[in-house]
Amino acid sequence: MSAVDQAVRDAAETTAVFEQAGRTGRADALDAIADAFEADREAIVATADRETGLGPTRLNGELTRTTFQLRLFAEVLREGSYVEATIDHAADTPMGPRPDLRRILVPVGVVGIFGASNFPLAFSVPGGDTASALAAGCPVVVKAHPAHPETSRRTFAAMRAGLTKVGLPETILGMVEGLEAGADLVRHPDVRAVGFTGSTRGGRALYDLAAARPEPIPFYGELGSLNPLVVTPGVAASRAEEFASAYVGSVTMGVGQFCTKPGLLFAPEGADGDRLRSLLGEALGTTSAGRMLTDTIRDAYQAETARRAADSRLRSLSAGADAGSDDPALGRPALFAVAAADLDAELLEECFGPTALVIGYRDTDELLDTLTRIDGQLTATVHATDGETDLVERLHGVLRQRAGRLLFGGFPTGVAVTWAMHHGGPYPSATVSGHTSVGPTSIRRWLRPLSYQNAPQYVLPAELRDEDPGIPRRVNGILKA
Amino acid sequence: MSAVDQAVRDAAETTAVFEQAGRTGRADALDAIADAFEADREAIVATADRETGLGPTRLNGELTRTTFQLRLFAEVLREGSYVEATIDHAADTPMGPRPDLRRILVPVGVVGIFGASNFPLAFSVPGGDTASALAAGCPVVVKAHPAHPETSRRTFAAMRAGLTKVGLPETILGMVEGLEAGADLVRHPDVRAVGFTGSTRGGRALYDLAAARPEPIPFYGELGSLNPLVVTPGVAASRAEEFASAYVGSVTMGVGQFCTKPGLLFAPEGADGDRLRSLLGEALGTTSAGRMLTDTIRDAYQAETARRAADSRLRSLSAGADAGSDDPALGRPALFAVAAADLDAELLEECFGPTALVIGYRDTDELLDTLTRIDGQLTATVHATDGETDLVERLHGVLRQRAGRLLFGGFPTGVAVTWAMHHGGPYPSATVSGHTSVGPTSIRRWLRPLSYQNAPQYVLPAELRDEDPGIPRRVNGILKA
Repeated sequence: MSAVDQAVRDAAETTAVFEQAGRTGRADALDAIADAFEADREAIVATADRETGLGPTRLNGELTRTTFQLRLFAEVLREGSYVEATIDHAADTPMGPRPDLRRILVPVGVVGIFGASNFPLAFSVPGGDTASALAAGCPVVVKAHPAHPETSRRTFAAMRAGLTKVGLPETILGMVEGLEAGADLVRHPDVRAVGFTGSTRGGRALYDLAAARPEPIPFYGELGSLNPLVVTPGVAASRAEEFASAYVGSVTMGVGQFCTKPGLLFAPEGADGDRLRSLLGEALGTTSAGRMLTDTIRDAYQAETARRAADSRLRSLSAGADAGSDDPALGRPALFAVAAADLDAELLEECFGPTALVIGYRDTDELLDTLTRIDGQLTATVHATDGETDLVERLHGVLRQRAGRLLFGGFPTGVAVTWAMHHGGPYPSATVSGHTSVGPTSIRRWLRPLSYQNAPQYVLPAELRDEDPGIPRRVNGILKA
Repeated sequence: MSAVDQAVRDAAETTAVFEQAGRTGRADALDAIADAFEADREAIVATADRETGLGPTRLNGELTRTTFQLRLFAEVLREGSYVEATIDHAADTPMGPRPDLRRILVPVGVVGIFGASNFPLAFSVPGGDTASALAAGCPVVVKAHPAHPETSRRTFAAMRAGLTKVGLPETILGMVEGLEAGADLVRHPDVRAVGFTGSTRGGRALYDLAAARPEPIPFYGELGSLNPLVVTPGVAASRAEEFASAYVGSVTMGVGQFCTKPGLLFAPEGADGDRLRSLLGEALGTTSAGRMLTDTIRDAYQAETARRAADSRLRSLSAGADAGSDDPALGRPALFAVAAADLDAELLEECFGPTALVIGYRDTDELLDTLTRIDGQLTATVHATDGETDLVERLHGVLRQRAGRLLFGGFPTGVAVTWAMHHGGPYPSATVSGHTSVGPTSIRRWLRPLSYQNAPQYVLPAELRDEDPGIPRRVNGILKA
């Protein structure tokens, strides 16, 4: 029996006991996992820092995000509205008599999760996908990312310790390693859904495997995003300095390895735009090169920026300013300017690292037309002045079709874990645009509805019984919070 | 330009105006479509009766279901909770300052719908898929089913009349015909999601097309279900007569052409079970043969029942009783008995028409073991006596993994259009087990989340503005109904 088969079978065997723990039992488990992370915080951060070089400040912040998320999901379980408990009592209707019907969301079964390289503590083994699947009541088998194997093993151990602490079997959570294990996980007949964050190429290959199964399963993948950001003529004219420095900070944050890095900047042609481009180059000059997540990622980044530097359509904005170190081991920030008319599909591919493309537009029509040609995005951002409401409305009309989150000012890096967050969007930013991978509603991905017709009370889950379970329910069509 | 391309482009052009009509504008449109059906009721029913032979009583009932559904969805839009309006005000959090975030569900864009053969008025051009997509705010292009072309055209015209009545462009709804048109619809780049009800083979081929697109889209398909029904030893012993007659009524209702026909009956071996099997045969003898939806469907039905009659593992329960007419143009009811041990994959394929397989089980272990081997189902039903609670709990444990709706007594035919209904289930009963194709929550299939960050009030949809829109919202984590 392969390691994948063993882990999935072990996880599948816990399905009933994990679900029977109920909302509050699972909430306690999430809290216990958060406690276990806190107890091992120092060693986890040190391990992750050795493997990624992201530094203790960032890694401590990531771990805090993860524990915050686990505790928030525990609250979501206790509040209980996420199960969408719905009761329609037997009644006469214009369609004739209706039976007693009661609907609830139940866990789909074992879930396969792929750890991501760029957030070793927040989108990897212990990240939002795993936390949301466990919250849903689904056993999980994680495929660890090879970029940080020791971090994966250490966080995995802490999570199992948390499960054990509340008396649940540790095999609710399994972990496998290796490329082939990933494919096997997606193909395993007992795996009912998959979560993935990574490259468009790798993600699409796995998506195709999931769709080609005898019983296809949902594949919730986040495959890449360019995160266009539009600077209006008004902003270029009135606050270019302030913008340039903040923008370069967002692009180079975490050595540009965020899925929400604003990698496409639309700025006007003409004098104001030219000045903005100069300021961007200057801001870049004060930015350091940084260690990237893996040598493979760094090599790919350097090859792509070299290609762009040699592309006659592009102009390097970092040419004058020496952006940080020349150390070939580091990822060196780079910005390239291009005319909107010169864009092609290749230039619109994500380049993972501290770089962005600054696209010059001649007028509003060219701006809007270019925006209609880009793929689905996690985010789109507009920086405008108060007087540019017409332009903002037109941009909104185009961008809302293409992105999952629209920002008005600010930068998309930094994804708040909260009810109103949506982290997803049209393909390829998400393979399933109807769901998010961040925030309480991400739990919905791992649930399916189940209706009971004329069921005796003893069969019904507590949330659907006559006795008030103390959670929001919809009864005979009326939602009661 | 092909007819599909034309219809999709015309529909896509209405996206903005249809969405701008807002919840109440679309609710008015749904009501106007219902009115248009009522105004043309007599002619619609007569046309459908000519093409399907389902009879005016059934067809009038179907049309009533469709208008009821449209008006219910209009109420759902006015109530407004379905958009899941969520506001998180800017705040300090343990993760640092949080921006103002507001989340809403928005239409995905143009939707392709495949009309089904078996409900010309309730799951075809004017059925639940079309109604739910329009409710969501998505323009729709329907691929008409060839089993009832005139009915499709007439109901299509009525729906367009309804749209026109409220001042909306009629091209919000398009219709195409022909097998190739169906494939083209699924592949069209401007189609963002597909709804389908039909056979496992045809549905899977279209599912594969949807998954293979450069930008894959969700394919919400209902591909078939056997709807197992378990009779416990207690029921076989105490009320076999009553059960046998009601069960045969459910199997042969609508000439057995319902997706929820209870086509697998689990009954105990032994004296009580044998008596039940005799009673089933007798009940069958009083049941008439009926005209099936198309000659192709009838031919397939007759071929399959002939194959089963010749299968040495099966015993015909209709052999003694002459079930209705011998007219080869009609679908003749037939029941076959088989031992659980003799079941194989072929016998567990759906046979569309007035037939069922009566599976004899020797004991509880064999019953549960056999049930664990069946595919995903729309429904599963248990008929038990009050004293059999242990058995009911064990059956519940197995069946809840495999079905979308669990019935305790009664029959699955008849699917109430109400909040607590779930019509779906694990594959192949549904290709996406997380969503329903009947009831208000079916609208969720055609929506995707969109978050606004620090957006000015004038950009926000009404449901997300500071001013109370009079709908349920979640504000800073608290759900307010």
